[in-house]
Amino acid sequence: MENERLKQQLTFLLELDKLKNIYRQTYVLHEDRPENDAEHSFHLAIMACILAEHAREAVDVLHVMKMVLVHDVVEVDAGDTYAYDTEGYKTKAIREQKAADRLFALLPEEQEREYRGLWEEFEARETPEAKFANALDRIQPMLLNYRKGGISWKERGIHVEQVIARNAQVTKDGSEAIGELAREITEAALREGMLLD
Amino acid sequence: MENERLKQQLTFLLELDKLKNIYRQTYVLHEDRPENDAEHSFHLAIMACILAEHAREAVDVLHVMKMVLVHDVVEVDAGDTYAYDTEGYKTKAIREQKAADRLFALLPEEQEREYRGLWEEFEARETPEAKFANALDRIQPMLLNYRKGGISWKERGIHVEQVIARNAQVTKDGSEAIGELAREITEAALREGMLLD
Repeated sequence: MENERLKQQLTFLLELDKLKNIYRQTYVLHEDRPENDAEHSFHLAIMACILAEHAREAVDVLHVMKMVLVHDVVEVDAGDTYAYDTEGYKTKAIREQKAADRLFALLPEEQEREYRGLWEEFEARETPEAKFANALDRIQPMLLNYRKGGISWKERGIHVEQVIARNAQVTKDGSEAIGELAREITEAALREGMLLD
Repeated sequence: MENERLKQQLTFLLELDKLKNIYRQTYVLHEDRPENDAEHSFHLAIMACILAEHAREAVDVLHVMKMVLVHDVVEVDAGDTYAYDTEGYKTKAIREQKAADRLFALLPEEQEREYRGLWEEFEARETPEAKFANALDRIQPMLLNYRKGGISWKERGIHVEQVIARNAQVTKDGSEAIGELAREITEAALREGMLLD
């Protein structure tokens, strides 16, 4: 292929195929297997456009969608760190920075800047778009896990306080309605014995 | 939950979890298993934003991304019809219309209109956005399949003429560069014995 720019873009896009093999702690609803990062990112992207009206501040939907599509890209190299794995979290930032250095550099330079910027913006959780994207990223596994009888909470003996500490403020920051939904799911999960008191 | 509108949106979004269990004829690159619709749609969405500059006519990227995210939604009810299954194609349109009736109606009314409209627009392949989205939908499995040694072509004894008939014009209509890429892959696949002459 002579089109050097397209070639670089395809290298990046084909590298992302690996997201289909990075398994999360959440299960898909209709099979007995964990969800992978590509499926999770798909779900967040369609949630971003369907639920945009619920964002706390007005958001640029395209910006949110691009952000959620690349928010887990670094896991191609760094792997998935379980939300409640405190050991893994100690090295997460370093592992992910290295992964970002390598992966986004596969793109043409101005796209490297744009998409790496989106990933950093997501991580920093400061803009309205990043706050909304993070709220989606927190509520999606809660929705699946609750629907699945709390399986991944039960497997690890997660306490209600851990779920609140991780999700309550982040969901609320991104969306009043999604924050409320997170609260309802947490309370129901506790009541139904999916979370420890 | 008292928020009736959010409830409808969540019903639709959780129904889409089933796309994670609808398996296509294409294989993922790094595991020995077929790709599912959620993974495929994820891949098209990120391709849409990274490759937008290659669209034949200027496209509204957000519009393309929403379109590719819902372009396979009807397969939740209608299943995946293999590209070269001529029997399956006879009933495909009817099965998919019925599926669209049910699925998009889960959404609040104006979103039902918007997203069903996007699906119909994709199918009609007339607007610049639909042409570009269809080009992506054709090139993505070609890229994966070629990288995977042509496995799904070989399994079914696909002839080069079938691949050209299905993909050459559609990719060219959406993008000069992607049309060229499709031509290169087809020629290489023939040369390397992945397709029958």
